[in-house]
Amino acid sequence: MASRADRLAALVVERELDALLVTNLVNVGYLTGFGGTNGACICGAEQRVFLTDFRYTERAEAEVEGWDVVTVSDDWLGGIASRLSGRTGFEDHHMAVRTLKRLEEKLPDGVTLEGAAGTVEKLRRVKDEAELAAIAAAAEFADEIWRFSLERGLVGRTELDVAGAAEARMREQGAEPSFPTIVAAGPNGALPHAEPGEREIGRGELVVFDMGAKLDGYCSDGTRTFATGGPGEAARAVYEAVLEAQEAALGAVKAGAKGEDVDSVARELIAAAGHGERFGHGLGHGVGIEVHEEPRLSPRSEDVLAAGEVVTIEPGIYLPGELGVRIEDLVVVTAEGYRNLSGLPKQMQIVD
Amino acid sequence: MASRADRLAALVVERELDALLVTNLVNVGYLTGFGGTNGACICGAEQRVFLTDFRYTERAEAEVEGWDVVTVSDDWLGGIASRLSGRTGFEDHHMAVRTLKRLEEKLPDGVTLEGAAGTVEKLRRVKDEAELAAIAAAAEFADEIWRFSLERGLVGRTELDVAGAAEARMREQGAEPSFPTIVAAGPNGALPHAEPGEREIGRGELVVFDMGAKLDGYCSDGTRTFATGGPGEAARAVYEAVLEAQEAALGAVKAGAKGEDVDSVARELIAAAGHGERFGHGLGHGVGIEVHEEPRLSPRSEDVLAAGEVVTIEPGIYLPGELGVRIEDLVVVTAEGYRNLSGLPKQMQIVD
Repeated sequence: MASRADRLAALVVERELDALLVTNLVNVGYLTGFGGTNGACICGAEQRVFLTDFRYTERAEAEVEGWDVVTVSDDWLGGIASRLSGRTGFEDHHMAVRTLKRLEEKLPDGVTLEGAAGTVEKLRRVKDEAELAAIAAAAEFADEIWRFSLERGLVGRTELDVAGAAEARMREQGAEPSFPTIVAAGPNGALPHAEPGEREIGRGELVVFDMGAKLDGYCSDGTRTFATGGPGEAARAVYEAVLEAQEAALGAVKAGAKGEDVDSVARELIAAAGHGERFGHGLGHGVGIEVHEEPRLSPRSEDVLAAGEVVTIEPGIYLPGELGVRIEDLVVVTAEGYRNLSGLPKQMQIVD
Repeated sequence: MASRADRLAALVVERELDALLVTNLVNVGYLTGFGGTNGACICGAEQRVFLTDFRYTERAEAEVEGWDVVTVSDDWLGGIASRLSGRTGFEDHHMAVRTLKRLEEKLPDGVTLEGAAGTVEKLRRVKDEAELAAIAAAAEFADEIWRFSLERGLVGRTELDVAGAAEARMREQGAEPSFPTIVAAGPNGALPHAEPGEREIGRGELVVFDMGAKLDGYCSDGTRTFATGGPGEAARAVYEAVLEAQEAALGAVKAGAKGEDVDSVARELIAAAGHGERFGHGLGHGVGIEVHEEPRLSPRSEDVLAAGEVVTIEPGIYLPGELGVRIEDLVVVTAEGYRNLSGLPKQMQIVD
């Protein structure tokens, strides 16, 4: 695969721009390898300029390869402006209104700025081998944290205790949560974005356990719903409906499939099971440096999946006041289908 | 003290605006008490509207008092726009360029938007009693973490181990770091924003240990520089110069003092000690919900201190390749001077 900078330069030329100014630090890090907290870069057909301040000069020289490293002393926006030329794209989904105004005041003659939101995000969708390996490692790491959590048992512990112990375990081992861990038992499971609370997990409940690890800069994301003791018929039927929808949606994943269509495979099955109104979120999203990235799989998505993208497949059914079930795998899109990075079984697990 | 919304409404009227649209989530949380991840609010003389999406309706109804809670279903920016009227200020230091453009397309007739950066940040500068108590508790908590760290010793441990153990201890006790902990020994101490590394801390070194806790939504920030065994004459002289500058700057803190002037008290003493070029950052900054807030104390600051503000006083001297010293207290500005929230001694501590 061509370097990220070269792939970006091709997109810049395709958009008939002379260069792209990248100010979203996540994108800057992706393109240049820079890990500090202040940096920007300018990428054109022939231009590769990385800018930072004095605090990070040494670090940038160690981390950033293939870019001219420039230290801007006093006037950050002036330092950027002086290196722009012609039609320059900028990240209008990220740059603040006031920053743009100040930057415009410093532009050299002949430079025009043009919104080019999402250009780097588009590149980030398809992962290279090193990125796929990092995400797979993060997913495997999270699987181990689930096993650790289940060994310690769920019943009689609070949601907060289960989530806190899982996160502490991640950190002990050099990772961190890729988002705040969700442990939501019984009726709390019906809130798709529940925060773990002081409620003690009882017997005979369903427990939604949604967790991801960030390891070496890449995220994982996954969910399992466990049962503490045999659930009733109704709960089991909900579980089976979600599992069936999840498996069917997985079966629809492959390069060329539309995000909208994969979503609707799951959504129609859940509707057929009588819970059409109870799946109130999209089917999935891309995962990489950030835990929510492009592409999206949802009724409104216009994205088409490509090989090398990493996405979640996570349908759910939420019955307010009663229970929730969500089952989520993290998969790599391939030409023929997908490769599953989530290793935990999906049949209902009964745990103490 | 009047409610935050009432204080903001007074500022809005003073600026001759009909209302302020607040989209920076930290500011939204400060004003309304909302703790979720999607919300905005509109505040005018008579208007108090808080907006969120369906995921947070219940939460907002529990957390947000004194505001009309509105759930926006589909079109988030349209939902906001339809509730604006007249001259509306917006947070142009926060809102992205593309978001503004989309919002403008949805504005009702007669509504104009005007940049009003920093309005809520200005309110946030002066803390109320509950906020002061929360920050004091966070500072006391961090002091305990330092004591815990020193009891375990520094010599022979890596910087990363010392920093990691301190952060783990914070989390065990229900807090979290307010920023990534800095432990920088020997020559690493000369990098003001060093990241802890695998370097083992030796005897006879200076160790810069910069740490803060976030507890109940409020941050602390403090630094001590410890010596592992008796340092040489030169290191001791640097330490004493920083300490003298720090104490003198503290003596200049009081309501009505200019941030620029307090900074220069420390800066001139450090210059007089022969290290004028070696204090490459500002003297201090406000601390609250965020670890870096207004006001600033620096050569370029235009801020004037007010009673109830919480600021750091943190001069340093950094000798590249050799060592660094920084001493930082967190203080409340009062009418007569200051109240120090940092409890650790500042005389040089020799630790193993």
